[in-house]
Amino acid sequence: MKAEILCVGTELLLGDCVNTNAAYISSQLKNLGIDVYYQTVVGDNPDRLSETLKNSFLRSEIVILTGGLGPTYDDLTKETIANYFGLELKEDKDILEKIGKYFINSNTDMPKNNKKQALIPEGAKILNNTTGTAPGIIVSKHGKHAVLLPGPPKEMQPMFEKEVIPFLTGFSEKVFISKKINICGVGESTVEEMLSDIMKNSINPTVAPYVSEGEMYIRVAAGAQTEKEAEELINPVVQNIIDILGKYVYAIDGVNLQTHCVNLLKRSNTKIATAESCTGGLLSKKITEIPGSSEIFELGVCTYSNKAKEKILKVNPETLKKFGAVSKETAMEMASGIRYISGADIGVSITGIAGPGGTDDKEIGLVYIGICTKDKCVAREFHLGGRLRDRESIRLYSAVNALSLIISELKN
Amino acid sequence: MKAEILCVGTELLLGDCVNTNAAYISSQLKNLGIDVYYQTVVGDNPDRLSETLKNSFLRSEIVILTGGLGPTYDDLTKETIANYFGLELKEDKDILEKIGKYFINSNTDMPKNNKKQALIPEGAKILNNTTGTAPGIIVSKHGKHAVLLPGPPKEMQPMFEKEVIPFLTGFSEKVFISKKINICGVGESTVEEMLSDIMKNSINPTVAPYVSEGEMYIRVAAGAQTEKEAEELINPVVQNIIDILGKYVYAIDGVNLQTHCVNLLKRSNTKIATAESCTGGLLSKKITEIPGSSEIFELGVCTYSNKAKEKILKVNPETLKKFGAVSKETAMEMASGIRYISGADIGVSITGIAGPGGTDDKEIGLVYIGICTKDKCVAREFHLGGRLRDRESIRLYSAVNALSLIISELKN
Repeated sequence: MKAEILCVGTELLLGDCVNTNAAYISSQLKNLGIDVYYQTVVGDNPDRLSETLKNSFLRSEIVILTGGLGPTYDDLTKETIANYFGLELKEDKDILEKIGKYFINSNTDMPKNNKKQALIPEGAKILNNTTGTAPGIIVSKHGKHAVLLPGPPKEMQPMFEKEVIPFLTGFSEKVFISKKINICGVGESTVEEMLSDIMKNSINPTVAPYVSEGEMYIRVAAGAQTEKEAEELINPVVQNIIDILGKYVYAIDGVNLQTHCVNLLKRSNTKIATAESCTGGLLSKKITEIPGSSEIFELGVCTYSNKAKEKILKVNPETLKKFGAVSKETAMEMASGIRYISGADIGVSITGIAGPGGTDDKEIGLVYIGICTKDKCVAREFHLGGRLRDRESIRLYSAVNALSLIISELKN
Repeated sequence: MKAEILCVGTELLLGDCVNTNAAYISSQLKNLGIDVYYQTVVGDNPDRLSETLKNSFLRSEIVILTGGLGPTYDDLTKETIANYFGLELKEDKDILEKIGKYFINSNTDMPKNNKKQALIPEGAKILNNTTGTAPGIIVSKHGKHAVLLPGPPKEMQPMFEKEVIPFLTGFSEKVFISKKINICGVGESTVEEMLSDIMKNSINPTVAPYVSEGEMYIRVAAGAQTEKEAEELINPVVQNIIDILGKYVYAIDGVNLQTHCVNLLKRSNTKIATAESCTGGLLSKKITEIPGSSEIFELGVCTYSNKAKEKILKVNPETLKKFGAVSKETAMEMASGIRYISGADIGVSITGIAGPGGTDDKEIGLVYIGICTKDKCVAREFHLGGRLRDRESIRLYSAVNALSLIISELKN
C-alpha cells in the first residue's frame, strides 16, 4: 500500500513556515507500514492542486492532504477534491451546530465565513476536530482515498491519532511494531560503534539510532503478519541491545531525559538545586519545563561572574585564582555551595566554555559538571566541542550530560 | 521566472527529520522575486528522482535540489542530473585536493568514498562549501538550470547566501527589497488592529506581520524595475507604520529582542540580574545565549519555592502570605532582592502561573514582571493565557515581555 502527502498552503511556498506536518505524517505512516515515496507542497491554487492530485493518484492509492480547510475564500482543498471525485458539497447540520457551539464556548460571534466549513462532499466520512473548527474528511471512490486534514498541527495531530490511524490500519497488509530504547550518559559515536554489527545487518527488524535535542534513542522496528510475530522478531534484538549497552539504557519506550530525571527525583523525594555558569539557566529551564517539577526543584542560580560565584555560592577566591572558573575544583565548590544555600539533597553545577571564544589553555567545549550529595562531592570533565558544535549545541549537550549524571546518581 | 524546490532524502520521507531547507530556500526566492509553485520531496531513488525532475523542468526554468551529494552509494543526485542533461561526470582535481585538506584539518583520514564527491558534470559551475566536504553544483543547458546543494542546513545556507543568490539575481526581472520593522511591548492582535487598514490595502509593497519565538516584526516588501524605485515604494509605508506604532518599534532591520537587549545593556554599561519563578531560568538562558553577555549578566536565580524566595531573595514572608507568590508585591520584592544580593544595576523578576494547573483565584497565564533600579521599583501584570497557549508558550511570552520591559527601561 502506497500513500502520498500533499500539503496545501501558499505560506509554505513563501517559506513563512516550516512543513512539520509532512514529517509528522510520514513518521506515522512508517509505523503503520505504509510506504511514502513523495511529499508535495502546492499553494492555494485549484488548478495546480488538481493537477498534483491527479498525478498523486496515478502513483498511490492514498493521498493525505493538509491545509486549505479554513473558512476563507482561498481555502479550496475540499472543493477541489469534490470536483476530482465528481461529488457535490452539502451542508452538514451536525457540523454547523458543532462549529456554532465552539464559538459560543470561546465567547466570540461566529463569522459568516465559518458556515463554509460545514460543507462536506456527499458520502464522505467526517473526522472530528477536538481542537478547532474545521472537520477532517475522508473521501473514498474506486479504490482511491483522499484524507483531508486541517493545517494547524495542534488540530491535525490529535485528529490523525484518533481517527486516521484506525482508518489506515485497515489497509496495512502487515502489522508494524517498534520499540524505543532510551539511552543516556554515552556519546553517539560510541553507541554506533558498540552497535555497528547489529545495525549493519538489520533488515527486519531495522535498528536505527536517533538524536533529538541532544538526547538519544535506538528504534527497533519490525513488520510481520501478526502483532505476536512482529514482537517475536523485535524482542531478542531489543534484549541484545540492552545487554550490549548495559547501564546506558534508562528506559524502553520511555519518556525523555528531563521528564525521566524529574520522575526519579519525585519518586525518591529528592530535592535538587542547580548552579550554572556557561549554560546560563538552561538546566533549570529543562527541569522546570516538566509540570510538577516545583515539588523537587529547590533553587537554581546562574553565576556567570567570579564575583557572583564567590558571593552567592561561596566558592573560595583561591580556588578561582589557582584553577580558574572552568575547572574540576570550581565545579565541585559550586555544587557544594548551591546544595548548602538551598538546603537541597543534591547540588549540581555546570561550568565550561561554550564559545565562541576559547582561552589560551582551555578549548571551546571544555565543560565540568559537579554533583554534590550528603555523602560525596564529585566533578566530571567533558569535551563537547566537536567539529560542528556551536555555542548553542555545547550548552545543550552540557545540560543533557548533567541530567544523565543526576539520573545515574539517583540509580546508585 | 519560476523555480521549484526538490529535496532528495529518504530520511525526509520517513519523517526522521523536518524539511527546513524547503522553507529556507522558498523564503530566499521570495525575496529575490522568483515564484515557487511546488516543493517536492523524493527519496534516494534514481528513477523517481528522474521522473520528478522531468516534471519540474516542464513547469519551471530553475530547479533547486538539496541532498544526495554525500559520499555513500545511495547519494545519487549528481549522477541523476548528469544523466538528465546528457553530461559525463569528471573528477575535479581542485575539489579532490580541498576535500583532502578538510580531513587533514579535522585530524581524520579521508574515507575512500569521499573521492566520489570530487566528480562533477562536465561544464558545471562549482559552488564552494565552506562548512563541509560536498561542493554545490549548477548545471545549465537549453535554458534550464539545476542548482544542486548539500542537504545539511549548516552547509546549504552559507552556500546559498554566498553563491546561489548572486547567480539567481541575474534571472530576476524585478528588484525586490524588503524592510523589517522590529516591535516589542505590544500584543499581536493589537498590532494587527492598529495596522489593519494598511495591511488590507497592501499589494506593492506588501505588509505582513510575523511572529517567531514570541517576537514580532512587520515585513514591508516591494518589487520594482530598480532598487531606487522599490525603496521609494517602501519608505513612506515604513514611515507610516513607525508613526502608528510609535514607541513599540525598537529597530528597523534589527537584531532579535534578546540581542537588542544585551546590546543596550552593554552600550550603557548596565549590569543586570534576574529572579525567576514560573519561567524557571528561561530569561537568564535567553540573555546568556548572546555571546559576550557575561559582561552585563551579574546573577540569575530561579526560586520556585516560597522558602527559596524568602531565604535567597529576602522576600518578606508576610508578603507571600498576604498576596501570594504570584502577585505584584512579590514580583517587586523579588526584583529588589535580586538587585540587592547581586549588586547589579537592574533587577528583573518573573512570577506567574504557567500551568497546566491554575489556582482558585488566579488563572493560568497570570504573570507579574518586576523591575527594580536605583530609582524605582515597579511590577506589571500580564494575562498570557489565551486560547491555545500551553505551559511552554506562557513561559516564552513571559520571558519576551520581560526583555521588552528591560528595553523600555533602558530607553528612558
